[in-house]
Amino acid sequence: MKSARRAALALPVLVAGLLAVHAARADDGMWLLNRAPLADLKQKYGFEPAPAWLEHVQKSAVRFNSGGSGSFASADGLVITNHHVAADALFKFSTAEHNYLRDGFYAKTRAEEIKCVDLELNVLMDAEDVTAQVNAAVRPGMSAAEAAEARNGAKAALEQESLGKTGLRSDIVTLFQGAQYHLYRYKRYTDVRLVFAPEQQAAFFGGDPDNFEFPRFNLDIAIFRVYEHDRPVHVEHFLKWNPAGTQEGDLVFLAGHPGTTQRLITLAEMEYARDTQLPAMLRWYKSREVLFNVYGRRAEENARRAHADLLRLENYRKVFDGYIDGLLDPAVIGAKRAEEDALRKFAADHPELAATDAWRQIADAQQIIAQHAVRAQLLAGYNYNKGFNSAAFTPGSLLGLARTLFRAPTEFAKPDRERFEEFHEAGRTALELGVFSAKPIYDDYETVVLTNYLTALAMELGASDPVVLAALGGQAPSVRAAALVHGTRLKDIAFRRQLWAMTPAQVAQVDDPLIAFVRVLDAESRRARGAIEQQLEVKTQAHTRIAQVRFAKDGDRTAPDATFTLRLSYGTVKGYAQGGQHIAPYTTLAGTYRRAAEHHDAPPFDLPPSWPGAKAKLNLDTPYDFVSTCYCIGGNSGSPTINRAGEFIGIVFDGNIQSLIWNYAYTDTQARALSTDVRAIIETMRKVYGADALVQELLGGQ
Amino acid sequence: MKSARRAALALPVLVAGLLAVHAARADDGMWLLNRAPLADLKQKYGFEPAPAWLEHVQKSAVRFNSGGSGSFASADGLVITNHHVAADALFKFSTAEHNYLRDGFYAKTRAEEIKCVDLELNVLMDAEDVTAQVNAAVRPGMSAAEAAEARNGAKAALEQESLGKTGLRSDIVTLFQGAQYHLYRYKRYTDVRLVFAPEQQAAFFGGDPDNFEFPRFNLDIAIFRVYEHDRPVHVEHFLKWNPAGTQEGDLVFLAGHPGTTQRLITLAEMEYARDTQLPAMLRWYKSREVLFNVYGRRAEENARRAHADLLRLENYRKVFDGYIDGLLDPAVIGAKRAEEDALRKFAADHPELAATDAWRQIADAQQIIAQHAVRAQLLAGYNYNKGFNSAAFTPGSLLGLARTLFRAPTEFAKPDRERFEEFHEAGRTALELGVFSAKPIYDDYETVVLTNYLTALAMELGASDPVVLAALGGQAPSVRAAALVHGTRLKDIAFRRQLWAMTPAQVAQVDDPLIAFVRVLDAESRRARGAIEQQLEVKTQAHTRIAQVRFAKDGDRTAPDATFTLRLSYGTVKGYAQGGQHIAPYTTLAGTYRRAAEHHDAPPFDLPPSWPGAKAKLNLDTPYDFVSTCYCIGGNSGSPTINRAGEFIGIVFDGNIQSLIWNYAYTDTQARALSTDVRAIIETMRKVYGADALVQELLGGQ
Repeated sequence: MKSARRAALALPVLVAGLLAVHAARADDGMWLLNRAPLADLKQKYGFEPAPAWLEHVQKSAVRFNSGGSGSFASADGLVITNHHVAADALFKFSTAEHNYLRDGFYAKTRAEEIKCVDLELNVLMDAEDVTAQVNAAVRPGMSAAEAAEARNGAKAALEQESLGKTGLRSDIVTLFQGAQYHLYRYKRYTDVRLVFAPEQQAAFFGGDPDNFEFPRFNLDIAIFRVYEHDRPVHVEHFLKWNPAGTQEGDLVFLAGHPGTTQRLITLAEMEYARDTQLPAMLRWYKSREVLFNVYGRRAEENARRAHADLLRLENYRKVFDGYIDGLLDPAVIGAKRAEEDALRKFAADHPELAATDAWRQIADAQQIIAQHAVRAQLLAGYNYNKGFNSAAFTPGSLLGLARTLFRAPTEFAKPDRERFEEFHEAGRTALELGVFSAKPIYDDYETVVLTNYLTALAMELGASDPVVLAALGGQAPSVRAAALVHGTRLKDIAFRRQLWAMTPAQVAQVDDPLIAFVRVLDAESRRARGAIEQQLEVKTQAHTRIAQVRFAKDGDRTAPDATFTLRLSYGTVKGYAQGGQHIAPYTTLAGTYRRAAEHHDAPPFDLPPSWPGAKAKLNLDTPYDFVSTCYCIGGNSGSPTINRAGEFIGIVFDGNIQSLIWNYAYTDTQARALSTDVRAIIETMRKVYGADALVQELLGGQ
Repeated sequence: MKSARRAALALPVLVAGLLAVHAARADDGMWLLNRAPLADLKQKYGFEPAPAWLEHVQKSAVRFNSGGSGSFASADGLVITNHHVAADALFKFSTAEHNYLRDGFYAKTRAEEIKCVDLELNVLMDAEDVTAQVNAAVRPGMSAAEAAEARNGAKAALEQESLGKTGLRSDIVTLFQGAQYHLYRYKRYTDVRLVFAPEQQAAFFGGDPDNFEFPRFNLDIAIFRVYEHDRPVHVEHFLKWNPAGTQEGDLVFLAGHPGTTQRLITLAEMEYARDTQLPAMLRWYKSREVLFNVYGRRAEENARRAHADLLRLENYRKVFDGYIDGLLDPAVIGAKRAEEDALRKFAADHPELAATDAWRQIADAQQIIAQHAVRAQLLAGYNYNKGFNSAAFTPGSLLGLARTLFRAPTEFAKPDRERFEEFHEAGRTALELGVFSAKPIYDDYETVVLTNYLTALAMELGASDPVVLAALGGQAPSVRAAALVHGTRLKDIAFRRQLWAMTPAQVAQVDDPLIAFVRVLDAESRRARGAIEQQLEVKTQAHTRIAQVRFAKDGDRTAPDATFTLRLSYGTVKGYAQGGQHIAPYTTLAGTYRRAAEHHDAPPFDLPPSWPGAKAKLNLDTPYDFVSTCYCIGGNSGSPTINRAGEFIGIVFDGNIQSLIWNYAYTDTQARALSTDVRAIIETMRKVYGADALVQELLGGQ
């Protein structure tokens, strides 16, 4: 799904049944840098970024391929990103002696900088519209499938040719749902070294309770240096840091790599999300969250066992609660309907686009999907919406292992392209790593998880459903779960290796209660998944036709949906009203100490070790975190916040809970992006962490 | 719903699709003392309680009218019950200086004993079968309503006559769903004084995490003395304490006052509970529990505000999780079906009972109820199943206040019998106490509660439902909730008084956003409630006919459903298997110290203040709590556990989570009653609390 929607969606306030349409367009859109909204910026802010400004921002922006954004911060290759974007890299070179992820790090000299294991950074050098070349491969009379294959062939050839000619990583990006193809050329950096990171508790102060909230007190940064040929890279483009920061009302920009948005779904799809998908997911998440809390409270060891699963759930639950609140705003649905009506009218007026029935096809497909979605998800953890591991089939759990081990022989016996995607050859090593992991399995934990799963199965599919009756095997969920967990041999890695080597016929005969259990679910879950995947193909083709309509009607006056490629968004530093209170746009360093004291330093509100002693030295009035109306979403983490002069004045690390709806629609009533302020970065690096030399480089631009 | 079911239900184990029917009857039944299961006791345990044994137990048993059970423990009127049964009384005479509920109490002399404010105890002196007299009032040709009224008249006359003649409280109890009426005569005691209570933390050690769990370490006792004419009452019947306690395998009895059970619902009603009612309640509870946890973690003050609501939810959630796990056991449903088939066959063979269509009528009624139940519950907190405050209309919450204040003028304008029962004149004082309470109202808390409510409304009734659209008023739930909470004047008690004094016409005109909000829901919620109440009447009449069938078929070989009147149940002290482990039937005092240490004394696993110092003096091997297969349910709390000799050897305070299904069916596979052992009571009263004189009285039987 692609592109963005303006005007009507901007201000979701429904007054006396009438949609209040904004006179001016709101600061909507994740813009391509080669399609920047120049007219809007000029009209609303009197600001016209020159081509050089845009090129400078583009080449200063960095993509972290582990899933985030960043920016060059010095001529000698310093790059700043979020601590939580860097977490994976920090974890990978931490050891039993040195927990850099938890304790932080500062390399006083370049010799001390630590090389990351497998981090790749990309910088977009150049983007070229190759729509005509790609479409030229399609000949009249080709079927939809043949056309798709022809396009894929053309795309691969173009990528290969570009790589050969430029030596740059070359990816063709599908934009506007297939209405355009752009060839992106990236400079790749693979020698990336850690220079500085604060303690994780400074970066994630407030933990889950403060996640997606504001006011906030997070120093969510990590600083790397990029090397080539074992020497710091010298870059032409990097963002100068402006230690003066911003003031309320300032125009600011984000340049980063938003992952995905759902702006271009149809009304039927949005209603499905609101009425079916999200409620089902929330039922599931909340039931599990209660389970893990209850289990965790019975013993400290229990809490430790459930910790990671609980953290993940808490995060998802906040996101989904945010989604549903936003989608229940009638203005959001109303704007979607108005947009769709206009598109359908345009399609009706332009029969040559052959798209008039696309919306109905999607609605029909969605209805079929709705009949199978919960079943497919519960029976084998298949979530067609992706992104959320949605059932009890967590990798490493007994149920997840059983499903994978039972299916592997069947799937691996097929040609790669016919397999379920999780069995594609490309992911085999990672899959094996999980399946043969020595990660401990706890019987009691697995039993409560499985009990909860069986109960959910009965409550969602109905206690009299044949597959539920078979799953329960004539026992109460708690009794059945205990029997399965205690009876299975899957806790034995050698047994897993035996299964992994079996033929489909052999695995079908295996005498293990949990393998027998997933066998009972398998046929039914394959049927449900197959039915969904068929409809997804129908939807994809219909969406492409709608995208043609949209493009014909609006051209590039709307932004495409996010694709984890470079985008520019803009907005202002601006507080908001919540619960009858005005939330000021800036917090201060003093606030951290205050919040820790309110909680008597109890986790997750405990101060990081270096902070109490530094309090007297700090200017406590220093702005710490701030909010802006800049449109952002997952993947934007680490994006530089930039002023009109193209200078770094902060770094995005989160959105507030009201911004979660940005997945579906843009609003700036309460939704805000959260940035750590450049002033707090400088003040704390100097006075808490004694990183004066590094600050010197960041400010001096050596 | 009434009476009990035996044999097939006893062992809910379904092997290869076949119901395993026990050869011997299990220890099922909450028996009337004048219908004790003498034959079963003799056959299974070789024990024949003499009439004197039964009379002694009956007259030693005490009903706490605040909702629990107890027993006389000395000739001078000592009565023992649970700490949690006594909690209400302890709270009522606690002051700012003396928090007896939290800190405990021991009266070294009779002069120090503290009189309770409004506690009434009842002792059953005598029970007489008056079925014939009651039914004699019914003349041929009377309609069902006329017959009911005639019976009510006869019952009132019999009660009045008995009171006049004996001076004893005289209540007619409807048993076996109207197949029998028994006249119960009680000795009433209203001067009840506290003698001893441990700290609440000793009584409820482990808090919610250990609630409904075993192993357990609770000293859940409180000891009162009953007075008459300002002197300790001298009672002929009291249970001698046997300090030797019990051994695994011993036959034991409970004599107490179980509140309600649902043993006699039909298959259609049981399936409704499993498929519709319980899942809906669990969705609601878990969503709220997550909400309160999240809100509470953001600040200590938040946690305090949400504390009581959260505790209540946690308790209900455990109960409902237990119910659903039990009802998903196919053996439970299978046994219900078998029982029903047999009854229907008997009904078909006895057309004179005119009951053949009763089951169908109930199924039809239940189906109509199912269409309205969630709506009635969500729109105005009306839960026809009672017992659980099921929506956001908590008394004292803004929404609860708004609903009550909006409805009061309309309801109070009607004759008493036509009002909703919560507006009956009898409860008016209590209602006003709540409505005009100065209990603080917190805007932020009310806002998150109302947001959650509005979201649930949309998710359960559908976002396009007209009443949902009206409730949201064109806004997202969070925005709407904030506006309602901030806009309402209901926080002002004077404003509530104004509303209370209004006519229905006046209150309909009140310009307050929250009153306007409940007005929007009112008509629809009245319609749903009306539709349900009509079907409840249909069900009641059909159930009475089924009860006649059951009684004609089985007589009193089954026990009636619980009615908060005296019952005897029996079983053995017996461990059980759980999660592949054997759970031993006894814990020891040493276990408390161990469990506290495991949790580093963190609440709710902190030792009560008097315990650490006493450790060295205690015999740590003393049995603390134990489990038995005795059938019990809410209301049984405080029931004496009794040996063959009719001696007190423990006191029931809880059931394990597997016993929750006892509401619907009896099983003894894992379900257990939990008692505090007489040996731990004596050991701790002596060595922790220095209550030697009191122990002397309890053991010496002065």
